[in-house]
Amino acid sequence: MQDRFLRACRREPVDRTPVWFMRQAGRYMAEYRALREKHTLLELCRTPELAVEVTLQPVQRLAVDAAIVFADILLPLEPMGAPFEFARGEGPLIHHPLRSRADIDALRVIDPEEGLGFVLQALRLLRRELKVPLIGFAGAPFTLASYLVEGGRSSHFERTKTLMYTDPEAWGALMDTLSTVVSRFLCAQLDAGAQAVQLFDSWVGALGPRDYEVFVMPWVSRILSEVGARGAPVLHFGTGTSTLLGLQRRAGGTVLGADWRIPLDRAWALVGDGVGIQGNLDPTTLFAPRALLEERVRDVLREAGNRDGHVFNLGHGILPGTPVDNVAFVADLVHTVTERSR
Amino acid sequence: MQDRFLRACRREPVDRTPVWFMRQAGRYMAEYRALREKHTLLELCRTPELAVEVTLQPVQRLAVDAAIVFADILLPLEPMGAPFEFARGEGPLIHHPLRSRADIDALRVIDPEEGLGFVLQALRLLRRELKVPLIGFAGAPFTLASYLVEGGRSSHFERTKTLMYTDPEAWGALMDTLSTVVSRFLCAQLDAGAQAVQLFDSWVGALGPRDYEVFVMPWVSRILSEVGARGAPVLHFGTGTSTLLGLQRRAGGTVLGADWRIPLDRAWALVGDGVGIQGNLDPTTLFAPRALLEERVRDVLREAGNRDGHVFNLGHGILPGTPVDNVAFVADLVHTVTERSR
Repeated sequence: MQDRFLRACRREPVDRTPVWFMRQAGRYMAEYRALREKHTLLELCRTPELAVEVTLQPVQRLAVDAAIVFADILLPLEPMGAPFEFARGEGPLIHHPLRSRADIDALRVIDPEEGLGFVLQALRLLRRELKVPLIGFAGAPFTLASYLVEGGRSSHFERTKTLMYTDPEAWGALMDTLSTVVSRFLCAQLDAGAQAVQLFDSWVGALGPRDYEVFVMPWVSRILSEVGARGAPVLHFGTGTSTLLGLQRRAGGTVLGADWRIPLDRAWALVGDGVGIQGNLDPTTLFAPRALLEERVRDVLREAGNRDGHVFNLGHGILPGTPVDNVAFVADLVHTVTERSR
Repeated sequence: MQDRFLRACRREPVDRTPVWFMRQAGRYMAEYRALREKHTLLELCRTPELAVEVTLQPVQRLAVDAAIVFADILLPLEPMGAPFEFARGEGPLIHHPLRSRADIDALRVIDPEEGLGFVLQALRLLRRELKVPLIGFAGAPFTLASYLVEGGRSSHFERTKTLMYTDPEAWGALMDTLSTVVSRFLCAQLDAGAQAVQLFDSWVGALGPRDYEVFVMPWVSRILSEVGARGAPVLHFGTGTSTLLGLQRRAGGTVLGADWRIPLDRAWALVGDGVGIQGNLDPTTLFAPRALLEERVRDVLREAGNRDGHVFNLGHGILPGTPVDNVAFVADLVHTVTERSR
C-alpha cells in the first residue's frame, strides 16, 4: 500500500507531501452527479455498494493519497432518534429539533454495528479494493449538537449557545450522549478497516476560546483520547478556528486542521512540533485561473516547508461546481513541488 | 454633550469606558416591533422622522454613550441601480445580481444628497436632539460587493471570490465604484452631523490574509484615508477577522473592531498602541443567565484593562429575541466596573 498519508500523519519522512481533499467525492464530479440522478444522497450513504462506488470515484480520477468513506456527519442522528432530511438547496432539516431536557434524554446511545452498519460495511468493502489508506470520520459533538438544536444550518448558533449557557447540565447530557456515540462509531470504523479517522468540528469556530474550553473541549478531549488509544492517526478538523488552535491541540489529535484564514506556518507555530497540520487551501481558489491557483498552492507548500507532518488539503470541502481538472492539477502540483531528493 | 465615546475613540482619558451596541435599535425592542407593525424596514430607513424615532429608542431605554443612525448598509445599492428587498426570514435579495462586466459598469456613482438624502436628513434631525454623540455608517466595499454578486447572504462567497480571482479588472472596477460611493456617503454623513462613522466590513473574515491584502485592502485604505482626513473618528469593523487585524490596522481607522473569537488583549497586541479597540462581547451571551453574562463582560473589561481607547461593544449586532433587560444590565455594568477614581 502507498502509505505516504499515514506516514505524514505520524510525522515520518515521506517521498512527497500527501494530498487528499475534503468532500473529494461529490457533486463537482460528473460520475457522482450521474449516480445522484438515480439515488438520493442518503440512499448512496446507506447502500454500501453505492457508497463504495462513490468513494472510489475521486481515487480513480485524481492522484489523491487517501480515500475517505462516502458518508455524512449527520448519519448517526436518525438511529439516535432524530430523523432528518436534506431539503433541496437548504441543507439538512432536523424534523424535531431538541427543545427540552426530555428531548435530550430521549436520544439513544446506539451500537454502531446496528445503527450505522452500512458505513462499517462500506469500509470493509473499500479496504479490500484500495491501494491508498482509508479514512473514516464522524462529526464532533458541538457541530452535531448545533444541527440538533438549531434544526439545520445556522448563522449565529444562538439556540445552541443559549442551551449551553442557560442549562449547562442539559448541555453536558447532550454532549455526553453525542460523545459516546461518536467515540464508539470512530472506534468501530477503525475496527472495520479505516486506517485513520477524522473528527469534523466544522462549526466550532463560532465559539470564543472560553466557551470552547468550558463547554466543548472536555468532550472532544475524551473522544480523541478514547479513539487515539487505538493507535491509528486521528485528524482533528474545524473551520474559523485560528484562535482555538492552541486549545484544540490540547484537546488532542495526531493532525490538526487549519483553514485558509491563518497562514499554515503561523498555525503550526501555534500548535507546536508534536503534531501534524492538515490544510489549508481556500476551496474557492479552485475556481481561479491556473496561474493564481498555482501561486496559492505554492504559498501553502512554502509555508509548510516540506516539514514532516504536513498533509495537503483544503481548509474546507470542495464546493459544487468546482472544475475537476483544477482539483487534479492541484494534486499533481503538490506531488511535483514537494518531491524530496534523497 | 456627554463625550465619553468620542474621547475614547481618540484614546483620551475617560471617566468610564463608553458603551454602545451594534444594532442597538432593532427587533429585540418592543418599541421597534410596534413601529414595524405599521412600516417595512425600508420605510423606516427612508422616512427621516421614523428613522429618528427608531434611533432614539435605545438611547432612551439604555445607558448607551452613542447613538447610531437607523439605516442599512444596503441602502446605497438601490440608487446605484441595484434594487433589492428584504425577504421574510431570508435576508436581503438583490433583484439582479451582478453577472457581467456590463452589469458592473452600469452601476451609478451616486451623489449622497440625491440618492441617500433621507439618511442625511435623519442625521441632521438627530444631531439637534441628542445628548450623546451620533455615529453614521456605511458597508465596506467587499461586504457590499458580496451581496451584489451573490444576490444575498452567502456561506462560502464563491461567486464573489471567483469574480475577484478570474477578472481582477472587473473586480477593481466594482471596488472602485463602491469605494467612491462609500467614501462620499461617509463624508456626507459627517457633514450632516455625524460625529464619528463606522465602516462595516461584516463578511471580510471569509478571506485569507493574502486575498484581503491584494483584493480588498487598497480600497478600504483609500476610503479610510479620505474619510479620516475629515478629522472625526472612524471605526473599522469586521467579524471573523482575528488573522486580518494587522492588515486592517494598516488599512486604517481610529478604532478597530474585534469579535469574541479573539481575546481583546490579544487583538490589541496585534494592532498596537496607536489605535483604539471596539468590542468584543459575543452577542449570544446576552441570552445567558446574569451570572455568566456578568462574568463575560468582566472578562472583556479585564482584558481591556481600562486602557484609553476601549469602546465596549458586542462583536456583532444584537440578535432578535435578545432580552432588553440584559442589554441594559450590560451597559450599566460596564459603567460601574470601569469608573475611574481620580
